[in-house]
Amino acid sequence: MNYRIISYVLGCVLNIEAVAMLLPFLCSLVYNEGDKWVFPLCAAICLIVGIPLICAKPKDKTMFAKEGFVAVALSWIALSIFGALPFLFSGSIKSFTDAFFETASGFTTTGASVVPDLNVIPKSVLFWRSFTHWIGGMGVLVFLVALLPMSGGSNLHLIRAESPGPSVGKLVPRVRTTAKILYGIYIFMTVMEFVLLILGGLDWFSAATLTFGTAGTGGFGVLNTSIMEYSEYVQIVITVFMILFGIDFSFYYLLLLRKNKSAFKMEEVWIYLGIIAVSVFIVFFNIRSAFSATGDALRHSAFQVASIITTTGFSTVDFDLWPQLSKTVLVILMFCGACAGSTGGGIKVSRIVILIKSIIKEIKVLAHPKSVVKVKMNGKALEHEILRGVNVFFASYMLVFVAALLLISVDNMDFTTNFTAVVATLSNIGPGLSAVGPTCNFSGYSTVSTVVLTLTMIIGRLEIFPMLMLLSRKTWKK
Amino acid sequence: MNYRIISYVLGCVLNIEAVAMLLPFLCSLVYNEGDKWVFPLCAAICLIVGIPLICAKPKDKTMFAKEGFVAVALSWIALSIFGALPFLFSGSIKSFTDAFFETASGFTTTGASVVPDLNVIPKSVLFWRSFTHWIGGMGVLVFLVALLPMSGGSNLHLIRAESPGPSVGKLVPRVRTTAKILYGIYIFMTVMEFVLLILGGLDWFSAATLTFGTAGTGGFGVLNTSIMEYSEYVQIVITVFMILFGIDFSFYYLLLLRKNKSAFKMEEVWIYLGIIAVSVFIVFFNIRSAFSATGDALRHSAFQVASIITTTGFSTVDFDLWPQLSKTVLVILMFCGACAGSTGGGIKVSRIVILIKSIIKEIKVLAHPKSVVKVKMNGKALEHEILRGVNVFFASYMLVFVAALLLISVDNMDFTTNFTAVVATLSNIGPGLSAVGPTCNFSGYSTVSTVVLTLTMIIGRLEIFPMLMLLSRKTWKK
Repeated sequence: MNYRIISYVLGCVLNIEAVAMLLPFLCSLVYNEGDKWVFPLCAAICLIVGIPLICAKPKDKTMFAKEGFVAVALSWIALSIFGALPFLFSGSIKSFTDAFFETASGFTTTGASVVPDLNVIPKSVLFWRSFTHWIGGMGVLVFLVALLPMSGGSNLHLIRAESPGPSVGKLVPRVRTTAKILYGIYIFMTVMEFVLLILGGLDWFSAATLTFGTAGTGGFGVLNTSIMEYSEYVQIVITVFMILFGIDFSFYYLLLLRKNKSAFKMEEVWIYLGIIAVSVFIVFFNIRSAFSATGDALRHSAFQVASIITTTGFSTVDFDLWPQLSKTVLVILMFCGACAGSTGGGIKVSRIVILIKSIIKEIKVLAHPKSVVKVKMNGKALEHEILRGVNVFFASYMLVFVAALLLISVDNMDFTTNFTAVVATLSNIGPGLSAVGPTCNFSGYSTVSTVVLTLTMIIGRLEIFPMLMLLSRKTWKK
Repeated sequence: MNYRIISYVLGCVLNIEAVAMLLPFLCSLVYNEGDKWVFPLCAAICLIVGIPLICAKPKDKTMFAKEGFVAVALSWIALSIFGALPFLFSGSIKSFTDAFFETASGFTTTGASVVPDLNVIPKSVLFWRSFTHWIGGMGVLVFLVALLPMSGGSNLHLIRAESPGPSVGKLVPRVRTTAKILYGIYIFMTVMEFVLLILGGLDWFSAATLTFGTAGTGGFGVLNTSIMEYSEYVQIVITVFMILFGIDFSFYYLLLLRKNKSAFKMEEVWIYLGIIAVSVFIVFFNIRSAFSATGDALRHSAFQVASIITTTGFSTVDFDLWPQLSKTVLVILMFCGACAGSTGGGIKVSRIVILIKSIIKEIKVLAHPKSVVKVKMNGKALEHEILRGVNVFFASYMLVFVAALLLISVDNMDFTTNFTAVVATLSNIGPGLSAVGPTCNFSGYSTVSTVVLTLTMIIGRLEIFPMLMLLSRKTWKK
């Protein structure tokens, strides 16, 4: 284990966090808030820890898979701990575990909150809260890789551990260029949404925070009522952009290269859009009698389906009051999640597709034991390694789910609450049903359960293995 | 597709069912019931359909995997349809779908009921209801194989499609002898429990029906209150036998052969007993304050844990009133299930162990990509085929789960009810929580949902693939 390189990466990440805190500081200046010292102080603390860590430069700069995973896992824990300081120092959240939960919820783009009333929180802190979504959406290590020249395969291991999906596609042979392209597309789409929201009459603060929440598929809003009070136009813009941010970014890159044919051949994207269409259809027919106008029913169905499948977690209505069929559709979408290579969480559409295809293959093989059947994706046979990876991911997702469910059940909340609280955190969604429904929050859980759910969010965002690896004795051997 | 051999097997199965109906007929004679004609009439109907089917003997007696799966799937559907007739003819259940549900629940050893009051049902029908558990527990095709000499690999395919577990172990090279040994052990243990219950002061009718319910890990009782009204002695005997019937029968066979060393090396059995011990421990500490005597709390914890993990579904208390931690433990055990090669259902302990071992392997491989790590069971490395089979089974179990959950959610019952109704049927347990809790029943569901849950039971009992194969177009091609 090369401890030096891990502490070096940690140092870089903390320094980036310090720089990121300048934006909410600007916000506090613009709104001339009382506690202007909060963000400079927090940034200073990040730098005090971060700078010494990068000064001790590692002699051996090569990073193996193990170091990559551990560096990513520890970076995300550190990000969430130091990112919690503004909540504490501003007095917005009193307890450390709650602030840790809120920040991890931000960086992991979950959007689950323990804050009962957002009105008492300074705008700069709300800005920071939403901005963590944007940072976490594409990933801070991906940003680091785009920024820093690192030797050999080092940066690939970092990207691999942080990026979602069964197989991390390098868009171009050089990893650093891939990271730059991803951030380029991300920034472009963010600006697009921001402009459209400004055109819809929103002030810059609301437009920016809502855009951060959408782009990272996060879900933190700045009002207690999520998106319910905004205009139809804003709701529709957010619906469209949630869906767009849930698409594999390679799709956009292929379009940029004018490789339209390859782009439109991406099975996952079509199936993702298909699932959205079918789900909206079912929910719409199930809830339409509750609305006087058909258009309203359709808008709310589309918004909620898009919000849940992309694991954003915004809401325009309290869907916990909807009939069971619609709620069940939403709960299933919570597990499904968006496309691999997007900013969304969950199991990912491509994994679900691969699992279903393996089942179909198994039926064929059982019927004709001598036949050779391959599982294909985008017309190509999948390698055994990818199939194994998908299966193991699915099993470990369920294992973590069960473990978290058992641990938080000690608090004696009802089954629906616990079940959806775990999926809402593990898939990085935000709201669940019942006592953690869209108009409620996670403050009902005990300190222990809050920590469990915080870790569940980070485990889910990093797709399980980096965090599990921290638990293995073998990882820590020299 | 060799249709002839499938219809031949179907005919045999129906004839066996006709013979099985003689026992409840004897019961109606003993109790001198009014409608003595019910069972002879039903048996006659089975024979009228069954005898012509076996008269058209297949020219080609070899059966391939495909025919084996289809024959088993169709046999179980036929068994449940014809086995429903006594409920209808005796007037015990009015609707066909309800009677179909009740019978499938019996044969699949689920034990979920749509009958609100058992007191109005004739004893002979109650006897039949419990006897279907006993028939279904070890499997009617296994019985057929023990009885009938069939050519070549034919009978292996039948056993493979009907028996639970990731790899069907042939105890001895000859499949027919294996089937005989299994039934031998099954009958011996059944007699043991019957005698112990008689010694506990039960009349022969109660002792027989409770024994059938335990041996098949079924869960139908003859009182509305399940096992709540029986003595402590009876409850303890049933607890012990539920656990015994949940153990892989190969364990007993190895003991019979005095291969104690090999028997006690079976990892699955130890882990199964370990899970029971840990679960009883958690539940006991969680519920003990609700009981005045510590012994009572321990007895009820052990009974409920044993009943759920073995997928029997008997109850001595209404565990739906327990704290959430205990209920969550029980729900997790519902998915887990008993040992492979036992009469219990669920995913099976060995599959769960293999899944967890593959996760641990994956973490090791990710950390050291060049290392060679094998997943081992009982000290031997597992073949790739078995690993793949376990993964595909797990994925398909979850897929069927989600599909059933979505379909029955149309009825607008609450999430906990629907969720536990599906796991209770798919894992062949019986009771769930909330509106399908131990003191409730499944009569609240609509006709469509009742059919969905009936099919879920059969899909679960046959471990999914035989039933899924019926849906594949390829299966029906000549």
